Amino acid sequence: MTSTIDGAILFGADERQAEARFTAIDPRRATPLSPSFSSATRADAAEAARLADEAFVDYAATSPNERATFLDALADAIDVIGDPLIERAMAETGLPRPRLEGERGRTTQQLRLFAAFLRAGGGLDPVIDPALPGRAPLPRPDVRRINLPLGPVAVFGASNFPLAFSVAGGDTAAALAAGCPVVVKGHPAHPGTGELIARAIIRTVGERGLPPGTFSYLPGETEELGAALVADPRIKAVGFTGSRAGGLALMRVAADRAVPIPVYAEMSSINPVLLLPAALEARAEALAEGFVQSLTLGSGQFCTNPGLVLACEGPALDRFMAAAGAALSACPASTMLTAGIHAAYEAGVNALIENDAARLLARGGKAAAPYEAVGALFETLAGDFLAQPALGNEVFGPSSLIVRCENIEEMARVASAMEGQLTATIHIDEADKPAAARLLPVLTARAGRILANGWPTGVEVCHAMVHGGPFPATSDGHTTSVGTLAMSRFLRPVCFQDLPGELLPPALRDPAVD
Amino acid sequence: MTSTIDGAILFGADERQAEARFTAIDPRRATPLSPSFSSATRADAAEAARLADEAFVDYAATSPNERATFLDALADAIDVIGDPLIERAMAETGLPRPRLEGERGRTTQQLRLFAAFLRAGGGLDPVIDPALPGRAPLPRPDVRRINLPLGPVAVFGASNFPLAFSVAGGDTAAALAAGCPVVVKGHPAHPGTGELIARAIIRTVGERGLPPGTFSYLPGETEELGAALVADPRIKAVGFTGSRAGGLALMRVAADRAVPIPVYAEMSSINPVLLLPAALEARAEALAEGFVQSLTLGSGQFCTNPGLVLACEGPALDRFMAAAGAALSACPASTMLTAGIHAAYEAGVNALIENDAARLLARGGKAAAPYEAVGALFETLAGDFLAQPALGNEVFGPSSLIVRCENIEEMARVASAMEGQLTATIHIDEADKPAAARLLPVLTARAGRILANGWPTGVEVCHAMVHGGPFPATSDGHTTSVGTLAMSRFLRPVCFQDLPGELLPPALRDPAVD
Repeated sequence: MTSTIDGAILFGADERQAEARFTAIDPRRATPLSPSFSSATRADAAEAARLADEAFVDYAATSPNERATFLDALADAIDVIGDPLIERAMAETGLPRPRLEGERGRTTQQLRLFAAFLRAGGGLDPVIDPALPGRAPLPRPDVRRINLPLGPVAVFGASNFPLAFSVAGGDTAAALAAGCPVVVKGHPAHPGTGELIARAIIRTVGERGLPPGTFSYLPGETEELGAALVADPRIKAVGFTGSRAGGLALMRVAADRAVPIPVYAEMSSINPVLLLPAALEARAEALAEGFVQSLTLGSGQFCTNPGLVLACEGPALDRFMAAAGAALSACPASTMLTAGIHAAYEAGVNALIENDAARLLARGGKAAAPYEAVGALFETLAGDFLAQPALGNEVFGPSSLIVRCENIEEMARVASAMEGQLTATIHIDEADKPAAARLLPVLTARAGRILANGWPTGVEVCHAMVHGGPFPATSDGHTTSVGTLAMSRFLRPVCFQDLPGELLPPALRDPAVD
Repeated sequence: MTSTIDGAILFGADERQAEARFTAIDPRRATPLSPSFSSATRADAAEAARLADEAFVDYAATSPNERATFLDALADAIDVIGDPLIERAMAETGLPRPRLEGERGRTTQQLRLFAAFLRAGGGLDPVIDPALPGRAPLPRPDVRRINLPLGPVAVFGASNFPLAFSVAGGDTAAALAAGCPVVVKGHPAHPGTGELIARAIIRTVGERGLPPGTFSYLPGETEELGAALVADPRIKAVGFTGSRAGGLALMRVAADRAVPIPVYAEMSSINPVLLLPAALEARAEALAEGFVQSLTLGSGQFCTNPGLVLACEGPALDRFMAAAGAALSACPASTMLTAGIHAAYEAGVNALIENDAARLLARGGKAAAPYEAVGALFETLAGDFLAQPALGNEVFGPSSLIVRCENIEEMARVASAMEGQLTATIHIDEADKPAAARLLPVLTARAGRILANGWPTGVEVCHAMVHGGPFPATSDGHTTSVGTLAMSRFLRPVCFQDLPGELLPPALRDPAVD
């Protein structure tokens, strides 16, 4: 019962099979997996949005404690699916078992963190300015503000995190925590994994007695489906993790609506790593090893993959390049998620190979299957990087570019020329601190997260996390897609002036006096 | 010295006269006022944006206390201008002295409120998740988050509040408080008032030793100027208060940039007032008097003007309409701000007069000068209002429409059909509370501020205020243009992972241990 996969569209508690079908592909073998899945249409998107809109007032009126209990139950329901979830995700993504088990833990931990945040009163930010009836020349009214849910939210899962950034991932968790019904457009690369999770959510909605439209699931593979969902007038916000082209397309649809809505799209980042001179001198080889590990993690298919390294010319950089090249050469090829991602990776690497300004330093081990990625490491000069903005394009996968700078000032110029990023990393020793202080304002203006002496892959799910950043890392640098601050995407402030206490949201009422 | 008006463009500490000129018009006489003003160009916008960008890192690095001292000094510098400011504003806007003196007090109070908020640590929202080195399977890093300024901000002042929503108005105060340099595109209807304030800001920037590009002022009257400023790649956010057409145009420019930026536009609102049955029965005449006062305040030129009244059919509504009609008939005509606003008002009123679904209830006293507005009160049936969305269009000025509803359910249907609003008001007695509870979810989903038993004109400047609301009231219902929450428009969260304490922003450092 908890591991049914039959390819239905899930409209709240109802389900329906569509005639048009698609299948998932096992990327390790490039062969289709059964069963086939319904390819949802514009009409299906409208139906799911209508249900979500119907559910909104009642779901929004649930208390934070009720939503916390729901999120905890949802985490439990995902755990209950057990091994069939991991096995289906392995088949659909080619990702190894330990990675997917870890990702499942991260997904349920995220739901439980939002539950704890809700129980602690998080996200509502109540503010009370009491009346001042005696103020001259005019009395001050009683004004009270709180955050309220926006309305139905459309969520587009990512291919590269089939659990943590997909059907019950960060956007869904944040929207449900905020009090917003959710319609998920499932990612066509892992529709079975998506359906297992979607059914767990829908069962939990039913068990908790919540309105059925609180959650719906649209499997599908057409761009038309996604565009129709974003264009639906009942949808009030969009969460998306994916490609820059995909995110930009949804941003255009949202901006062209009669009533524009926010699209929270996480799109593109090359996550610069700055190796400062003293740190590089002290541990070039260790840095090279850590770098190649981060670069090749999950076949390089992380939004936070370190695609750019900046360092100053000299023997220490030569040592780093030699060690990184050797480490990458020893890395076996590894399966990518989809044919499309693999083809885009190959095209990105080939563009660098054909670019005279970039020199190939090393490749990883040979591919033995059609979707296997072969690591690639390039170097270029800062002047060439500054002259050719295309060298800064994201190559999604285990490819990175080392930019050789004359000095810290040139490093700052390269950093200043970068687009918005999810992360920027500095490796520093004590003697590097003045240079770090010089570079930090440049980096903080361009990235959502600044790391020292670590690697950007691996995003802690916590209150202080910012997994976001200026465009094009995301469409809106004011927010994050990971951590409890993500709830604010789906909330808006409303204030109440002189409203009688019993009509106020509970968190704005005066404490009861006995 | 504090009352120089010579029509220059003010590029930080430098100033320049342009050849192309325009003049302000005295709306009471429809005659030009001297002197003439420079009409800034695209190149001038680029120059001001360049200066702001140059100033950004240093201004952003000022401490909250330094910015608080600057804002307090700025409030003092506005007070020091004295009567020449009020007299020039009276000449340029036709608004009466007490109103402008009150607005000046509100403007300086707003600056001082932000100063106090900064001193109390407001707006930064620091959050610290300390490291957990012993956590299994992986240690947790130290993650610390804080809000940092976005970058240079472009501010477009409103015509209807030449002080509180203009050169040193809410957007400028919020951006400067946040640590963002500001470039103001002055409103061409009050360029002299704007210049007096701009010079006060620039003097204060100099006296506080801040970077000159912290503030620049571009007088101008072309749409090209505004579009160029919003399109400039160095501008990172836009604050705008004005017409729906103007706001939408700037939103399009911002969305079409290579790097899109947020536009915080406050545009259009008809501010529904719902008269519930028991309250209407108890005090129809008093409500009518309060309503007409709010409707005609400042010639009806408030964003929060009550342009729509919903009430249930019956003798109490008849009493209200009779009393409101009589009160409006007794109101003299009053000068509007500009020829354009007056013409749009006349067109809006005439469209209602010619609409068979609307019946004219009353007009105000006759006009004696070219830009004088004559009040207008209409009524219609709920069914007609639902059938004709154009009846809900904003008529900026002292015109309002009463919608007669069969019962509370029909009132809820009319409210559900409304566009996003800055405010929604309910007048209630004890017996109305169940109906109010039924209506509140509909109203909170559509408005930024809900008032009980008051009138929407008059916006308290305080921490809890939300002067915002769903589109088209504003372009972004997540924020406010009045109150200290407005700072968040110009801030974005950045997190720091394992950064050594001395490199962290001061508010994120561990407390010193002696």
